Amino acid sequence: MTNAVAKVETLHFPHRHLLTVEGLGVQEIHFLLDLADRFADENRQAGKRHDVLRGRTLINLFFENSTRTQASFEMAGKRLGADVMNMSVATSSVQKGETLIDTAVTLNAMRPDLIVVRHHAAGAVELLSQKVDCSVINAGDGSHQHPTQALLDALTIRRAKGRIEGLTVAICGDILHSRVARSNIILLNTLGARVRLAAPSTLLPAAPERLGAEVFTDMWKAVEGADVVMMLRLQRERMEGSYVPSVREYFHFFGLDHEKLARAKPDAIVMHPGPMNRGVEIASAVADHSSSVIREQVEMGVAARMAVLDALARNLTKR
Amino acid sequence: MTNAVAKVETLHFPHRHLLTVEGLGVQEIHFLLDLADRFADENRQAGKRHDVLRGRTLINLFFENSTRTQASFEMAGKRLGADVMNMSVATSSVQKGETLIDTAVTLNAMRPDLIVVRHHAAGAVELLSQKVDCSVINAGDGSHQHPTQALLDALTIRRAKGRIEGLTVAICGDILHSRVARSNIILLNTLGARVRLAAPSTLLPAAPERLGAEVFTDMWKAVEGADVVMMLRLQRERMEGSYVPSVREYFHFFGLDHEKLARAKPDAIVMHPGPMNRGVEIASAVADHSSSVIREQVEMGVAARMAVLDALARNLTKR
Amino acid sequence: MTNAVAKVETLHFPHRHLLTVEGLGVQEIHFLLDLADRFADENRQAGKRHDVLRGRTLINLFFENSTRTQASFEMAGKRLGADVMNMSVATSSVQKGETLIDTAVTLNAMRPDLIVVRHHAAGAVELLSQKVDCSVINAGDGSHQHPTQALLDALTIRRAKGRIEGLTVAICGDILHSRVARSNIILLNTLGARVRLAAPSTLLPAAPERLGAEVFTDMWKAVEGADVVMMLRLQRERMEGSYVPSVREYFHFFGLDHEKLARAKPDAIVMHPGPMNRGVEIASAVADHSSSVIREQVEMGVAARMAVLDALARNLTKR
Repeated sequence: MTNAVAKVETLHFPHRHLLTVEGLGVQEIHFLLDLADRFADENRQAGKRHDVLRGRTLINLFFENSTRTQASFEMAGKRLGADVMNMSVATSSVQKGETLIDTAVTLNAMRPDLIVVRHHAAGAVELLSQKVDCSVINAGDGSHQHPTQALLDALTIRRAKGRIEGLTVAICGDILHSRVARSNIILLNTLGARVRLAAPSTLLPAAPERLGAEVFTDMWKAVEGADVVMMLRLQRERMEGSYVPSVREYFHFFGLDHEKLARAKPDAIVMHPGPMNRGVEIASAVADHSSSVIREQVEMGVAARMAVLDALARNLTKR
Repeated sequence: MTNAVAKVETLHFPHRHLLTVEGLGVQEIHFLLDLADRFADENRQAGKRHDVLRGRTLINLFFENSTRTQASFEMAGKRLGADVMNMSVATSSVQKGETLIDTAVTLNAMRPDLIVVRHHAAGAVELLSQKVDCSVINAGDGSHQHPTQALLDALTIRRAKGRIEGLTVAICGDILHSRVARSNIILLNTLGARVRLAAPSTLLPAAPERLGAEVFTDMWKAVEGADVVMMLRLQRERMEGSYVPSVREYFHFFGLDHEKLARAKPDAIVMHPGPMNRGVEIASAVADHSSSVIREQVEMGVAARMAVLDALARNLTKR
Repeated sequence: MTNAVAKVETLHFPHRHLLTVEGLGVQEIHFLLDLADRFADENRQAGKRHDVLRGRTLINLFFENSTRTQASFEMAGKRLGADVMNMSVATSSVQKGETLIDTAVTLNAMRPDLIVVRHHAAGAVELLSQKVDCSVINAGDGSHQHPTQALLDALTIRRAKGRIEGLTVAICGDILHSRVARSNIILLNTLGARVRLAAPSTLLPAAPERLGAEVFTDMWKAVEGADVVMMLRLQRERMEGSYVPSVREYFHFFGLDHEKLARAKPDAIVMHPGPMNRGVEIASAVADHSSSVIREQVEMGVAARMAVLDALARNLTKR
């Protein structure tokens, strides 16, 4: 790629961090998706490696365990030639009484180029980003945002359907606790999809109409004629002290089985961000059905994260 | 190496996975041992690096902790230029209710080239291998198989004795729980050694005569005239709910001390897969004696794993 | 760099291990600090990488958790092109009953080039170093030594003040449990600084006058006219079974606030090895004040460790 072209492309993503999908423009998103598309194709060729992040250090800073997301970012970083450092903070200085800010400032002083952060508290990643000189990528903060998940979902949909604009996407399940839902609603709306939500009223936020989507408490109606049915994981670990639905009842009303799926368009695709609770929010037969693109989502996860890392690294200058 | 030669050599190990030593032919085994021999010599030269796995990703997927085996594979992978990702699954999605198959399918979707798996359940690694497109190496599954251990042991014996055929090898201790014993019996039989087993009857499987070795409950007789005495770790952590021998009694009857070792050939070598329980299955003085090749086993472990990774990677094509 | 120059420089640090700062000469220390200085400047340039450790393997062997020190060594190793392997031994063979020596011998058999060790017992790292062929770096052993911390502190002071000789350095707080204090006292004395210590008598060792520093139990007097005020972390986790001071009382008498700091020289700098207990041994306002060089310490940590790794690697020959 010549420098001239690189410069033009850089104009499409003039951000230092990726903290939220809020405020991203249509062109910016498609720029990332185009970049990710190329990486996805290349990843299918063995031994293909880039060096756009050669000499760059990526820190994977996870305050919450997530083997799959951490592995996805680690693989994305390494495919681009970065040095990747995994830091799991369950066993760290945080236990010795250090604050989030001190952790951020300490890591920053080691002069990494990119920090990927997952944290259990909404807003923690943005706070951290204000204290560092490098680029920060939000890999999930509490029930707030998970921007790379929304990007990989959009990429998966665009590759399966050829477009996103005009599609009807039904997001079903534990909306209340889901940063995946929050990020997807915003991104899909920006790209011109019609978003529907289906959840029991106990798993909806206080003012669901503000989410910018049509809200259903009857999942059968939500999936009616949908192009995409996106199931969410029932996050029982985030339900301490509040009402936890019984698995049997939940599956009956909000689990995706072939009967409910039959209400969607014949060529509808089924998505799930993983890890799945089979028999809780999704029937095993549906998860493994040809309409399921759940494996593609994982594959596109690496590609989408490569695109984000590449796009942000282009904006990095001297430290 | 020219392509022509590479092609000829590839013919010697036409497998996608290494799950068991069962079914491996004599030529295949010696092909791996020859390859490992060269790596072992090269590893003694500082700064020597290969790039046969450059651009390849190796995932170390450990459902059971094993710092030493994981480190050995990590070092083997890195010495060959691979990107190595360690995934310890005590802290992973498995805790969130994900099945082994979903974990396999998820990792596979990230398109690694090689996955090294250790699992506490016999057969789990083979099951996993059926769900992925990459090469799978069994790093130990329950009490079933540990093929690279058998290869490194064979390499250690061959380097110490110049051959394996015709040697008498006494494997002593906790045969019942030992995947190391199982894999070694098969491999050593294939290579023409005479295998003897010594264990208390409580630590022998139900039909020990089916193991393909001469079985003794008197260790003194088993080591009589042996060329190799291979001790096994007493795996008390696998003995929940069953009879656990007292350490004192066990060491008296089945611990290797200089008195018992004196029954073996004067130039007999002593082996142990590690980690050792000194004073339980082996006397400290024997472990540190000049007849002990226990350190060489660890060194040969890296070389044997490099050989396996290299041999399997040659069969990898486009993903 | 030509070989001739390399040879001359090598003469300045003719050691195989870095276990303690005891016995290091003034020229040796300044050789390391000069080297670290250059790395520190280069680290501020993006994408700068060395390859002096290309093909070398560095094992980070931590028997005690320390995310920040482990990360610092990992980054130092990677910036020099080494393969870095992190081994956290809480989950290792040690649990299976392996001795420290067997762990050392096992890792050594895998033929790494450098091992960085942190251990909870004083003397353990030196013991380990006697059993291996590679270079060993002490990353903290019990309350004994932490040589790279003393080097990074000296580097930070030298960069801030232009010199170390003749400066007055007040080290304040939990002297009893602090390997940081022990290493700093020795190194700073060697370099010609005047060292003062301030601690409650319960947090001083038995014969404090033997430490080679002026000892105060009144912190106000210790900081009087000091060029450097170095605070120590109150290590409550090392105080099992002994007297633990109340936080409120401790902060009143031995916490660094602006009032106490005002007794030091107007251009005095404030240091802390981290992680900080804000409001315990240091007021937040002081930690974040312009006189604080705490962030620089972290930054210099990477540079100082690069210097140590580089210096030791120059002495490595064929394995």
